[in-house]
Amino acid sequence: MIDRARVAVVGVGNNTSALVQGISYYRRTGSRVGISRPEVAGIGVGDVEVVAAFALSAGKVGRDLHEAIFAAPNNFPRIEAALDPSGVTVQRGLTGDDEIDRVAAAVRDAEVLLYSAPSGRPAIARSYAEVALAAGAAFVNTTSDPVARDPELLRRFEAAGLPLIGDDLTSQFGTSVVHHTLLRLLAERGLTLTSSYQVNLGGTEDFRNLVENPDTKHRSKVNALGSDQVQIAPLGFMPHLGSQKIAHLNLEARGWAGTEVSLDVRLKVHDPSGAAGVNIDLVRLAAGAARAGRGGYLAEAATMLKSPPGTAI
Amino acid sequence: MIDRARVAVVGVGNNTSALVQGISYYRRTGSRVGISRPEVAGIGVGDVEVVAAFALSAGKVGRDLHEAIFAAPNNFPRIEAALDPSGVTVQRGLTGDDEIDRVAAAVRDAEVLLYSAPSGRPAIARSYAEVALAAGAAFVNTTSDPVARDPELLRRFEAAGLPLIGDDLTSQFGTSVVHHTLLRLLAERGLTLTSSYQVNLGGTEDFRNLVENPDTKHRSKVNALGSDQVQIAPLGFMPHLGSQKIAHLNLEARGWAGTEVSLDVRLKVHDPSGAAGVNIDLVRLAAGAARAGRGGYLAEAATMLKSPPGTAI
Amino acid sequence: MIDRARVAVVGVGNNTSALVQGISYYRRTGSRVGISRPEVAGIGVGDVEVVAAFALSAGKVGRDLHEAIFAAPNNFPRIEAALDPSGVTVQRGLTGDDEIDRVAAAVRDAEVLLYSAPSGRPAIARSYAEVALAAGAAFVNTTSDPVARDPELLRRFEAAGLPLIGDDLTSQFGTSVVHHTLLRLLAERGLTLTSSYQVNLGGTEDFRNLVENPDTKHRSKVNALGSDQVQIAPLGFMPHLGSQKIAHLNLEARGWAGTEVSLDVRLKVHDPSGAAGVNIDLVRLAAGAARAGRGGYLAEAATMLKSPPGTAI
Amino acid sequence: MIDRARVAVVGVGNNTSALVQGISYYRRTGSRVGISRPEVAGIGVGDVEVVAAFALSAGKVGRDLHEAIFAAPNNFPRIEAALDPSGVTVQRGLTGDDEIDRVAAAVRDAEVLLYSAPSGRPAIARSYAEVALAAGAAFVNTTSDPVARDPELLRRFEAAGLPLIGDDLTSQFGTSVVHHTLLRLLAERGLTLTSSYQVNLGGTEDFRNLVENPDTKHRSKVNALGSDQVQIAPLGFMPHLGSQKIAHLNLEARGWAGTEVSLDVRLKVHDPSGAAGVNIDLVRLAAGAARAGRGGYLAEAATMLKSPPGTAI
Repeated sequence: MIDRARVAVVGVGNNTSALVQGISYYRRTGSRVGISRPEVAGIGVGDVEVVAAFALSAGKVGRDLHEAIFAAPNNFPRIEAALDPSGVTVQRGLTGDDEIDRVAAAVRDAEVLLYSAPSGRPAIARSYAEVALAAGAAFVNTTSDPVARDPELLRRFEAAGLPLIGDDLTSQFGTSVVHHTLLRLLAERGLTLTSSYQVNLGGTEDFRNLVENPDTKHRSKVNALGSDQVQIAPLGFMPHLGSQKIAHLNLEARGWAGTEVSLDVRLKVHDPSGAAGVNIDLVRLAAGAARAGRGGYLAEAATMLKSPPGTAI
Repeated sequence: MIDRARVAVVGVGNNTSALVQGISYYRRTGSRVGISRPEVAGIGVGDVEVVAAFALSAGKVGRDLHEAIFAAPNNFPRIEAALDPSGVTVQRGLTGDDEIDRVAAAVRDAEVLLYSAPSGRPAIARSYAEVALAAGAAFVNTTSDPVARDPELLRRFEAAGLPLIGDDLTSQFGTSVVHHTLLRLLAERGLTLTSSYQVNLGGTEDFRNLVENPDTKHRSKVNALGSDQVQIAPLGFMPHLGSQKIAHLNLEARGWAGTEVSLDVRLKVHDPSGAAGVNIDLVRLAAGAARAGRGGYLAEAATMLKSPPGTAI
Repeated sequence: MIDRARVAVVGVGNNTSALVQGISYYRRTGSRVGISRPEVAGIGVGDVEVVAAFALSAGKVGRDLHEAIFAAPNNFPRIEAALDPSGVTVQRGLTGDDEIDRVAAAVRDAEVLLYSAPSGRPAIARSYAEVALAAGAAFVNTTSDPVARDPELLRRFEAAGLPLIGDDLTSQFGTSVVHHTLLRLLAERGLTLTSSYQVNLGGTEDFRNLVENPDTKHRSKVNALGSDQVQIAPLGFMPHLGSQKIAHLNLEARGWAGTEVSLDVRLKVHDPSGAAGVNIDLVRLAAGAARAGRGGYLAEAATMLKSPPGTAI
Repeated sequence: MIDRARVAVVGVGNNTSALVQGISYYRRTGSRVGISRPEVAGIGVGDVEVVAAFALSAGKVGRDLHEAIFAAPNNFPRIEAALDPSGVTVQRGLTGDDEIDRVAAAVRDAEVLLYSAPSGRPAIARSYAEVALAAGAAFVNTTSDPVARDPELLRRFEAAGLPLIGDDLTSQFGTSVVHHTLLRLLAERGLTLTSSYQVNLGGTEDFRNLVENPDTKHRSKVNALGSDQVQIAPLGFMPHLGSQKIAHLNLEARGWAGTEVSLDVRLKVHDPSGAAGVNIDLVRLAAGAARAGRGGYLAEAATMLKSPPGTAI
């Protein structure tokens, strides 16, 4: 039997709620529904164990992880009717570089540090990368803040034999992957794109943060879609949507003899589920590579990232 | 300079109108808009020449091809404001096996016989395959009637060194390719499909024929989508749409931890353009293979066909 | 306190399931959600009592009404987690005119006979109207079969001082009412309709019946929309939808200076809820009128009917 | 024969382009397509005459009105292939109160002053109201800036026997009217709204101004929809849309027994056409009332305004 992959999580938001509840759901039901890869590096979905968690808000620090994931402003639905206490108490995250040692000590038991905090605080993101280096853990950056795109950091992880995966996860199934797939399909079939747009509406705290700090995200979107012909509307924060995201996509093109083709798409998805469905793969990939002594960037992660090393910051 | 690919066309409906007008459009403008492959076997889009055409209706037989393509019930729009006479007079097509010799004589000058008549008359489709064999031309069956799926016929084309391509073309960009792409995307990302449907509305004579003879088409759809979980609504014939087709697609799935994902798509496209955009590739592929002495089925055509040899009849 | 309105129901399908469960839901919760009229003729939603029920299928006859409403092929969801036995045993409905006396005897206790069987059996519908006359009950015809449009029948109900309401209920909120509202809005604002279509997809047994017997329904639709410019696609029977209906509507128009306007709508609704939400009003209207001695057609019902007296059969 | 209604226009943007081209279109064709009211106060659509026009941009001032309406950033399409010179030269508009006399002198020949400049400059809007008072012309405020909602101004127009119509025109057919109609329909049918949203995308300069100055507009929207349950997403400026607007609406509700109902709508419309189609009525209404000596607010205008007197500023 394989050893469980030990993960420390930074951020106890909706994405962590979806990850933690999902692991419980799959252990309990044995279901394969909605799973991308049953095994990664021999590690099953139920073999992932969260061994430490960090947050900043008073409503989460000091509580058991299985309670903290339901604290406001989290609004991912309760999937698991009853969750036993996890035994993991949420600890205070770092707020400056002077705390790297304290946090690194608390991470020492983990193989992977999953950075799943809100995007938009690049200095904090890099401090956690230092935590991982200090603790000897792999680092997975799911935010759009540049970490794996920092060549110097990447070199240091490589030298330490520790995987560094990032930046900005592509959802298992979100707006970007659908939009990208349809743009590529048009190109493959020989159609000529004339215009395209994308509107995203959501109700999570993460969404509210993006509304207030749109620039980083927008750059990451453009990296992901690879086309400046695509117009991206400002995000709409709609609390009533809870953890659901609704996206409206439009693609206008010209086909044979210049005749018009149009595609309109409405996508409805739980954003945290899309994140958790990829995070579960990234942490297993990182754990497997760490066990094999492979440091630095992992090419296998490329399809799960919007802004991997080499793309614009 | 390459020799023009000489094509005889059976059926002077909307698809032939789109093909003929498109060839003129690309020759005149030099545009690359909406073209899938600028060259196939070294043959450009403007290098295709229609040298003979067959139809049955009194309004088309005996007229110049460039007039006949606008005769009722054709309703593909006029793309080319002014078309010079083509010099090709539409001839009466065959109505029984006793006319194979007559028609074959009229096809003798062509490298490829493009069978672009309405679906639903399998005996006629096979008679035209006999015409091609008799005339020494490649045969392209764009209908859902089984021709290339007939192993005996395939063997005879192979033996004669003549390409036989079919059955049932996948539109350059139609409902099937979009639906198939999204179903595949869900699977690739690890989502579990729970249900899906497809509704098609159109206003062409071809569409009216399918409404009255739905079975063959439905089987071909199921071959193309590869899933019995997909429900296909009865076709809706709506004359006001002209040669446009509108499709509504829905896909419902489960993602991480069983949470719901839904996708709704509306597609609007000129059906005859989608057909012409693939026919232009199939006839060039057939001409190139014929020139190279390759007979029988051509594997390169697989992505352009809904029911290639080996799929259910 | 008002006397409860006593209703006999013909047909124990989804619509009756929604009606019966809804009455229980509103009595239990006191909720006002989704109710069109809290009181009609002083009668509240919870004041309606089903006192007799008739069906034909072996799975329903002889069972308590609160069990029979969940028997196949019914697929309206279970709204009420626990339902006590109703005390009403489903009786065999009539299959010919020779049974009118038997059924009338069983209806004697009811003020209103609600005819909620599948559309498409006009002779049976009229026989039940005879039952109502014989039993001294008001008659409500929710099907598209012509009953209230029969002037002779209407005269007899009038003479007997018994209300006769029909034909073909407009759903509380269905495709017709949305389509009609948007068509009227275009006209009110001075836009000129150029085309419009409607597609309906559903998964109930009632839907399957309509697919197999489309003509009556189509005529009723055209009565309701009042425009021959509206194209109605063939119904799509999709079992996976259960009791949900999905409709796609499109309206194309010209506005100021002939510029284009287009509207696309997707509607998702539980058909049986839409029926129950109107049936609850019709039976209260009929009971109130019967108590007041008003016979014949009731003008107040007009907005709830697709084909009232005077429209084409 | 009726005297032509003489109108001075402030703002030579897309809305004025649509108004001016439309008047020409209807005079030339005699068409009734897309016209809300053939006659208002006996005045036909073709009886409206623009006799003066004011703008600020160098590309418009000093040019004939029929040229200026096509100057950048205007992007309403050319409806009329050929337009003769109008004989009206666009004059410099006012930039401060010291110019009221100059502009009033230039307006003296007009019965109505149509204020059709961008929203968001309330002081300028009020200055033009002073121009109208000084010139003895009726005033129509199509912007969301409060003018008719100013009780003191309204009293002065009343005293002067001059009509004052405003504020913020409801488009002949735009997002608000469709959204409002569907919200009202839900309420009329007894459904209970649970949530609703609205997304607007457009490509005009007017749209860009609203994106940069969203507050006034948002208040006006809420006035128009009369519900705080409706979420309005930030506007998306998409230059490729030109003068078209695309809106996505969603309404979620509960029907009978609490079952779910959902409506999704996509609306595509030329914003300037929607404005012109109402402006043509407002100016005729104002001219008719002025001729009849009726001053102050005109109740007949209420359905064409989002924020009439009495609503919140």
